Amino acid sequence: MNYENLDKTAAFTNLKEFSPADIKQVLTAERIQKMDIPLGGGMRYNYAAQPVNEEIINALQDLSHELECVEKFKAVLRGEIMNPGEGRMVLHHLTRMESENTVVFEGKNQQDFYKKQQKRIELFAEKIHSGQLKGSTGKMFKTVIQIGIGGSDLGPRALYLALKGYAGDNLKMEARFISNVDPDDAASVLGDTDLESTLFILVSKSGTTQETLANRELALTWMKKKNPELDPSKHMIAVTSATSPLATSDDFLDSFYIDDFIGGRYSSTSAVGGAVLTLAFGKEIFREFLQGAAETDKKALEPSIRENAPLMDALIGVYLRNVLDYPITAILPYSQALVRFPAHLQQLDMESNGKCVNRNGEPLSYKTGPVIFGEPGTNGQHSFYQLLHQGTDVIPLQFIGFRKPQQNTDVTIEGTTNQTKLNANLTAQIVAFAKGSNNSNPNKNFNGGRPSSLLYGEKLTPGSLGALLSHYENKVMFQGFLWNINSFDQEGVQLGKVLTKQILSGSSNDAALETLGEILGI
Amino acid sequence: MNYENLDKTAAFTNLKEFSPADIKQVLTAERIQKMDIPLGGGMRYNYAAQPVNEEIINALQDLSHELECVEKFKAVLRGEIMNPGEGRMVLHHLTRMESENTVVFEGKNQQDFYKKQQKRIELFAEKIHSGQLKGSTGKMFKTVIQIGIGGSDLGPRALYLALKGYAGDNLKMEARFISNVDPDDAASVLGDTDLESTLFILVSKSGTTQETLANRELALTWMKKKNPELDPSKHMIAVTSATSPLATSDDFLDSFYIDDFIGGRYSSTSAVGGAVLTLAFGKEIFREFLQGAAETDKKALEPSIRENAPLMDALIGVYLRNVLDYPITAILPYSQALVRFPAHLQQLDMESNGKCVNRNGEPLSYKTGPVIFGEPGTNGQHSFYQLLHQGTDVIPLQFIGFRKPQQNTDVTIEGTTNQTKLNANLTAQIVAFAKGSNNSNPNKNFNGGRPSSLLYGEKLTPGSLGALLSHYENKVMFQGFLWNINSFDQEGVQLGKVLTKQILSGSSNDAALETLGEILGI
Repeated sequence: MNYENLDKTAAFTNLKEFSPADIKQVLTAERIQKMDIPLGGGMRYNYAAQPVNEEIINALQDLSHELECVEKFKAVLRGEIMNPGEGRMVLHHLTRMESENTVVFEGKNQQDFYKKQQKRIELFAEKIHSGQLKGSTGKMFKTVIQIGIGGSDLGPRALYLALKGYAGDNLKMEARFISNVDPDDAASVLGDTDLESTLFILVSKSGTTQETLANRELALTWMKKKNPELDPSKHMIAVTSATSPLATSDDFLDSFYIDDFIGGRYSSTSAVGGAVLTLAFGKEIFREFLQGAAETDKKALEPSIRENAPLMDALIGVYLRNVLDYPITAILPYSQALVRFPAHLQQLDMESNGKCVNRNGEPLSYKTGPVIFGEPGTNGQHSFYQLLHQGTDVIPLQFIGFRKPQQNTDVTIEGTTNQTKLNANLTAQIVAFAKGSNNSNPNKNFNGGRPSSLLYGEKLTPGSLGALLSHYENKVMFQGFLWNINSFDQEGVQLGKVLTKQILSGSSNDAALETLGEILGI
Repeated sequence: MNYENLDKTAAFTNLKEFSPADIKQVLTAERIQKMDIPLGGGMRYNYAAQPVNEEIINALQDLSHELECVEKFKAVLRGEIMNPGEGRMVLHHLTRMESENTVVFEGKNQQDFYKKQQKRIELFAEKIHSGQLKGSTGKMFKTVIQIGIGGSDLGPRALYLALKGYAGDNLKMEARFISNVDPDDAASVLGDTDLESTLFILVSKSGTTQETLANRELALTWMKKKNPELDPSKHMIAVTSATSPLATSDDFLDSFYIDDFIGGRYSSTSAVGGAVLTLAFGKEIFREFLQGAAETDKKALEPSIRENAPLMDALIGVYLRNVLDYPITAILPYSQALVRFPAHLQQLDMESNGKCVNRNGEPLSYKTGPVIFGEPGTNGQHSFYQLLHQGTDVIPLQFIGFRKPQQNTDVTIEGTTNQTKLNANLTAQIVAFAKGSNNSNPNKNFNGGRPSSLLYGEKLTPGSLGALLSHYENKVMFQGFLWNINSFDQEGVQLGKVLTKQILSGSSNDAALETLGEILGI
């Protein structure tokens, strides 16, 4: 396999020779119809408003071939060690995709293992929903609270919020989330929850995550204080690895397993997302979600980038980052239900590709992952879009839109529904960013030429949400291949942990650390 | 007054001559104690981990003098036309500060006007809280829902969430917010609210904001459908300008006024924030909040930047942006209650300073406002901090921390409280970003040299929150002075509005717009 650095490839050298397409000029109806690739789950990816043309796309195709992006994805699926820093396989796709081959580790068929956990979750959820399993004081479980942080929080939370309105009256349980070690986080959630009808999910792969264990203690303390008759062990399940200290504890009603081959930020389709989402929505919705992701995973195996949306998106992203030198990407969903989806993508992308050495540990002489941020439209239009339109930097944009709302409560005002207004705004923004508008008053002038792409579909359903998730997971993976980095470790989080322990144990000999600790009341 | 462009000043030319301080080396206990400036409300600003030294600070002081930053702030307070593009005064400080002179417009004493509105809100809120005013079916009002977008949403929402835990059992009314024109936003809020005990606040200065009027109609439709006996006009108040079509409507129980001299993103201390926050928390908490802001406003008049935190922060920001060329700033509050404060600052900063022409409309040859993003710590540590530590770009950081939690529910686990763990993490991060750590394994190496500042205090109270808000409002204002731009208009939002109207009225003759509209189901 070709593990060359991006700047050493012939295709990248060639790519830099072309002038970018002038988005102001080229955004035509024909181009919008043509530059459009289906994902799974009824979703499509449109890149008409990106500064690319046929020769640039051909060069990107060459780059993909030269760095064997699709071959590397196949190696992921085959179970090769694609997380070299930690010497691990990368198997999150197996939580949803039919694998062509069998990945076995220490005698364990990995796909069977993940599927078995989801099956166990489904059976458990049915007992909860039917009332066969009740709280320790005899009440039906109505609320599920996930205690976890990072990938055990952002993905599941974003997905829950994305589908809550879709589920509507069919919502089986309300889900809430506690993540931050700040005691005010747990207090705000626990303070207005009926603990007798609450099931907690403790999520920590290692079973040692400081924040998560601290919040577990807070929850246990709270339960004992509020109602001494309440038996906490009948109100808490664990999602952890089979080797963690939590796995064999009697403190849990049940435990469901993940393993080291699924990184936190890639764990939404594993038991980390599966437990809370199956409890909240029931097994059918979670299965549809997995199905949408699996369909989109399959598209990512297509060698032609004109038919492979995550690969095209990844390549255009590298073009924007490494040829045009744009350091930021904004994610702008025109769907309030996706309110926390940008926060999940922020982790997915920045934790995966915020690296400055290649997979062999050699320093890189080119830029890697951009900063990701975003808020739903139209809200963002009344906030930070001013800078996107008229600021001194160009920020590439990724729009997400749907033809229909999730809930059937829309009304017609002045001849149009609110959904139509929403999408008229989305359409207008894409064109305004691309084409700009000349005005003799320089204050009201818009330069245009600001690139964007659009992911769109009929409606935000479990299937289209799965497609969106898979698209971004695979885009980020492909970009890691292009930058020749390891997208599956996160050594950058370690130093903070080490220094935190030094402070808490009083073993630091750094005067700056101690002085800062003092002014913060430690 | 000197309205020269930044790059034409002698001080900026001089500033560029100095080498930045090496944060890895200079972060000492002595420096942490020295580089520390009080705000109001018990808050302080520490800039020890910024790449500045005495000679750079002196040059920044010269720059502040040369561009007359404090004099320009005084001109704001005097009521000069400091929003030249729109020919308006900039008067949001008068909502909280004692003005030394009287600002009069068309015979109206502006400070009296703003104060009178807040007094009227207090009297109205007392009637609601006491039950003197009840819903149209006789129920006490228990919930307040603000309908507004942009500055009518982000600031009030962030402030409500910041103080909800502080208020605890003294919370007078639960507040909720509807902003997005996406009908799913209103549906999600209205779907689980008891409308008979709900008071709506419609917030639109012009009275013509598309999203806000659409959501008002949705709310009215919902009320009529759910309960035909419910009289919507007894469940809705307006916050608007005295000249808007809403001001004289019979559809409202009462109306409270703002005017054109307070921009949306600066309106949190006006009736826009005052109505919802006084209804939620009562008048005392809102007064304490204004008091904290007023104290910090006064500090911003100090000519010595070593005693003027927002001015120092603004100048260091310009140094990071225009000398060191960093295009992004992250806001990282170690307080879960500040979960949406970065989103408010994102609007405040990016909408104010995302401009590419100066106050006279001349194109600028230097960078202006950075992209702002952020999430609370420790959550962010398990998400995007990987890129902050080991990514290929340096991202300046602004930390916020408090010695104590808001709620008294903390527990001691393994010898330390969770608040102590939280602040140990914050301390560790500042040092880790600044100093880095050498490791022979390049994957585990941290270059350090990543700048940060710290805003900190005893506890997140109404007063310290007011101080934080004032600090950032004045920082953004000072940066606008330094970049010689108008921080108080937002012409960049107009083009999208124009194109949206064309699509909705079918009057567009742009094929790209129509084709995009078609694929989005318009």
